[in-house]
Amino acid sequence: MAKLVLIRHGQSQWNLSNQFTGWVDVDLSKNGVKQAINAGKLVDKAGLKFDYAFTSVLTRAIRTLHYVLYYSHQLWVPEMKTWRLNERHYGRLQGLNKHKTAEKYGAEQVHIWRRSYDTLPPLMKPGDKGSAVHDRRYKYLDPNIIPGGENLKVTLKRVMPLWEDQIAPKLLDGKNVVVAAHGNSLRALTKYIERISDDDIMNLEMGLGQPVVYDFDDKLHVTNKVKLGK
Amino acid sequence: MAKLVLIRHGQSQWNLSNQFTGWVDVDLSKNGVKQAINAGKLVDKAGLKFDYAFTSVLTRAIRTLHYVLYYSHQLWVPEMKTWRLNERHYGRLQGLNKHKTAEKYGAEQVHIWRRSYDTLPPLMKPGDKGSAVHDRRYKYLDPNIIPGGENLKVTLKRVMPLWEDQIAPKLLDGKNVVVAAHGNSLRALTKYIERISDDDIMNLEMGLGQPVVYDFDDKLHVTNKVKLGK
Repeated sequence: MAKLVLIRHGQSQWNLSNQFTGWVDVDLSKNGVKQAINAGKLVDKAGLKFDYAFTSVLTRAIRTLHYVLYYSHQLWVPEMKTWRLNERHYGRLQGLNKHKTAEKYGAEQVHIWRRSYDTLPPLMKPGDKGSAVHDRRYKYLDPNIIPGGENLKVTLKRVMPLWEDQIAPKLLDGKNVVVAAHGNSLRALTKYIERISDDDIMNLEMGLGQPVVYDFDDKLHVTNKVKLGK
Repeated sequence: MAKLVLIRHGQSQWNLSNQFTGWVDVDLSKNGVKQAINAGKLVDKAGLKFDYAFTSVLTRAIRTLHYVLYYSHQLWVPEMKTWRLNERHYGRLQGLNKHKTAEKYGAEQVHIWRRSYDTLPPLMKPGDKGSAVHDRRYKYLDPNIIPGGENLKVTLKRVMPLWEDQIAPKLLDGKNVVVAAHGNSLRALTKYIERISDDDIMNLEMGLGQPVVYDFDDKLHVTNKVKLGK
């Protein structure tokens, strides 16, 4: 049966500076590039051969995918870049320093914004500077679908059509799929795949640039899970 | 109206060592990477914004596309990798040194293989080591379609469905398209776009990593052609 490999992007410049990132298109840091290259070498060493690749429309995830495919000698694998794999939209928190935000709103409030399954962050309005409504890459989306802020529950809801329409049919067809994406879009996929509860999922940490490999049976139940490089 | 940008990949390791390359998946040289990055900066400086990107299934063209998109801040642009944009298949000449081949077969014969519009190179058989029939990336192709060697005439024939089904409709719809590919697949496109004769087309040289920008009218006749960086 088919394999699914999930890879969180390497460290970004804002992972480094401790800022809320979300849909802001922050690039990989130097260290993030190294992590992405290392992920590619791990995939190569494990002999994983992909049929399809999926990533978000954010540079840090796309570059991670390209390093993974290049260093595993399969850069030619068809790839789809989709907003459905974007990081959780962090609303008006995007760009703010996490530590300073805790000073302003209190550590408890920031903890809730970061770790509650269904609490929304302060929402961005379409008129706000930095709203995705003004970004060319989302011009084919109904503006009413473009989020002003998301929790994991909402993120999961917009990730699932990609699973249902693209990823699951390919796995059922015996194709190996790689997904290079973000902490929360991958949490959403993991929650669904592993049937993790609303409470437990927020404690799941995906390592930066660490490939997670799933095997499935023909009902798409997980039969094996391996983290490469551990 | 829409713009089409054609970019030949940067220098490959076999451009450097003067070997026939064709469908062999030779990587960019260090200098080729620089040329690709430079192409991206030229595209950025010209303010070219793409809606769709096309490339071959060969690493040197795909990497060139990725550098172009990354350095023009649009790595998120949807990309399609297709064998139809591959370099001309050079048959049994693939891997041979051009100078040594001239010594063996005569300079005149090699000149004909390289510059005749409709002379085929010595053909590879499906059983030959290095035949594309054994390459995983072509497994969805009918083995009878996979070439054992091509001239420009045959190359053009297999490039055209991509123009007809994908590129032309997008241009007519006002979308800007970038194609990162190879000397001969781009010669084929250029021949069609500019209505160049069978005799003249073989003298057309595409510069490595040099973006060529076309404007079209609503009948897809060329109204302007600019080579960036000249």
